[in-house]
Amino acid sequence: MRIPMHTDGHDLRHHGDAEVRDDGSALVDLAVNVRADTPPAWLREHIAASLTGLAAYPDGRAARAAVAARHGLPVERVLLTAGAAEAFVLLARALKVRQPVVVHPQFTEPEAALRDAGHSVDRVLLREEDGFRLDPAAVPEDADLVVIGNPTNPTSVLHPAAAIAALARHGRTLVVDEAFMDAVPGEREALAGRTDVPGLVVLRSLTKTWGLAGLRIGYVLAAPDVIRELERAQPLWPVSTPALAAAEACVSPPALEEAERAARRVAADREYLVAGLAEFAGRGVRVAGPAEGPFVLVRVPAAGAVRRDLRALGYAVRRGDTFPGLGEEWLRVAVRDRGTVDGFLRAVGAVVGAG
Amino acid sequence: MRIPMHTDGHDLRHHGDAEVRDDGSALVDLAVNVRADTPPAWLREHIAASLTGLAAYPDGRAARAAVAARHGLPVERVLLTAGAAEAFVLLARALKVRQPVVVHPQFTEPEAALRDAGHSVDRVLLREEDGFRLDPAAVPEDADLVVIGNPTNPTSVLHPAAAIAALARHGRTLVVDEAFMDAVPGEREALAGRTDVPGLVVLRSLTKTWGLAGLRIGYVLAAPDVIRELERAQPLWPVSTPALAAAEACVSPPALEEAERAARRVAADREYLVAGLAEFAGRGVRVAGPAEGPFVLVRVPAAGAVRRDLRALGYAVRRGDTFPGLGEEWLRVAVRDRGTVDGFLRAVGAVVGAG
Repeated sequence: MRIPMHTDGHDLRHHGDAEVRDDGSALVDLAVNVRADTPPAWLREHIAASLTGLAAYPDGRAARAAVAARHGLPVERVLLTAGAAEAFVLLARALKVRQPVVVHPQFTEPEAALRDAGHSVDRVLLREEDGFRLDPAAVPEDADLVVIGNPTNPTSVLHPAAAIAALARHGRTLVVDEAFMDAVPGEREALAGRTDVPGLVVLRSLTKTWGLAGLRIGYVLAAPDVIRELERAQPLWPVSTPALAAAEACVSPPALEEAERAARRVAADREYLVAGLAEFAGRGVRVAGPAEGPFVLVRVPAAGAVRRDLRALGYAVRRGDTFPGLGEEWLRVAVRDRGTVDGFLRAVGAVVGAG
Repeated sequence: MRIPMHTDGHDLRHHGDAEVRDDGSALVDLAVNVRADTPPAWLREHIAASLTGLAAYPDGRAARAAVAARHGLPVERVLLTAGAAEAFVLLARALKVRQPVVVHPQFTEPEAALRDAGHSVDRVLLREEDGFRLDPAAVPEDADLVVIGNPTNPTSVLHPAAAIAALARHGRTLVVDEAFMDAVPGEREALAGRTDVPGLVVLRSLTKTWGLAGLRIGYVLAAPDVIRELERAQPLWPVSTPALAAAEACVSPPALEEAERAARRVAADREYLVAGLAEFAGRGVRVAGPAEGPFVLVRVPAAGAVRRDLRALGYAVRRGDTFPGLGEEWLRVAVRDRGTVDGFLRAVGAVVGAG
């Protein structure tokens, strides 16, 4: 029911979940960037146990302390939010911003939230010929809010932490969306936990690795004064009791180890997928790279028709043309296990022809 | 962690849950206006069943349609929110408002949300000598947003629907917080479902009757253009999958029948509580009335000391002095079952002396 936001022909409010809704329920889902087979049973049971306490108003203190400890930060630098989506709205509405810049292609909600809050947003478009790598010189000096994803959705590019940190300026808020960082082995290039980068705001999600998209839980790490500003713009009791229970559980040391194992598995599965797609290079199929996230961005001629044909064969992938900076020839494909990838690659072969 | 908001000595950010937190866990809770023994087992199981679908992003369409059908409205007049608290923030931030007025004493979040959004808020203070009844003439003609609760927290006064509807004006948004209306048998005086009152916005909660305070679910009923404005200010996926499952279940016909039975039980239990408190009239104990909600507002000399003494005897009641328009001599007491009330009345007798 949300009003579509079409800007320069890009529907900023299109998301992968729309690709598998309705008639898509029978499709193999490579459109949504949430790990398959999640949440794990232990986590589901932990969340279910919290339901006996639903009559009480949520008390976020334990979860906040757990998240702070996980990143070695004081609680004053942590804000729990109803998913990263709420964090984008808070940033757009609560901070004094005059000149926001969003580095594209990337997740479209930050720009949509900024526009909804009445801001006019400048775009920096990273280019395919540069491998969608960050060019710090492309960011205008007078930008007082810069939003960048790392690793970036949908390009799967992992920017060096130092390159992002170099964007920090006095008087500038530097928002780094690390929603997919826990899918990168060792979380190398993470800025979460850093307190030496002025104006740094890091967003984290528990949705993707833990399969909690339906629960609405994420968090913001920032300087205490920024956290206070964002918190003032939050509704009372912003995060539900089951979501708080999940957050606390997902930052525990055993959960972090499980996430790290999952990240390594994703990396191996991604290599397998990329190698498989390389077989179709003769048909014009190109994977943007090097991909470092739990999804890959694929360039393929007549991508719209390919996507429709893949659907007919039972596979949902996400259109890429709703991302600013990308055209009709792009698709985003989630990394799945080898069995699923094998089936998907056969479908790709049937659609585009042998390589 | 929220910054306290003290205005005219009233801490607008004090809520009943703070009275039973921490050391209060061993107390009998008459401070929080959530029905005891909730959520019922059938509802908890229904919510638990939704956890298997957590990996998918929330899809609010079925719950929205169910809520619309429950009030005989088209879906365009319904917005699901993460509790009424989110609705107050949306109203404060999304609507063009110049002259908001809040009718006090009432739940303090609407005013707190309006102030946080940068508005200066006028107050209409209903008076004890008028039985805290609405005086429509007290509302300034130029108010373009009026917020009133019905039945009102904490006074427990049920205003006639006609008296509230008479506050409607061209160019005015009339917000009626009906968070406790489903605890009134027959929901008499409800404005929910009405489409003939210009500018009417009704807020509903599923928290109190169903014991879902921890889940964050409520909804707004308003004209389609207002709903669209509020929706644009919402984050993406604002309500979690378990909360949507709960909403859909709680507006089903059997659930509505169960709520009606509970409302009648509350009314009987309230009469019992009020009659018991009347025994202490000789000690200066007065119940504001007639009380029609699942709580009563009590005037008692030295209420602060009484509250502390009741805590020492194991009973938590809510202080009344954080509500604008009330002074130190007020307490709010939730309606509980007769057994609990009997114990509470004994404690009151021990504290204030026999009547």
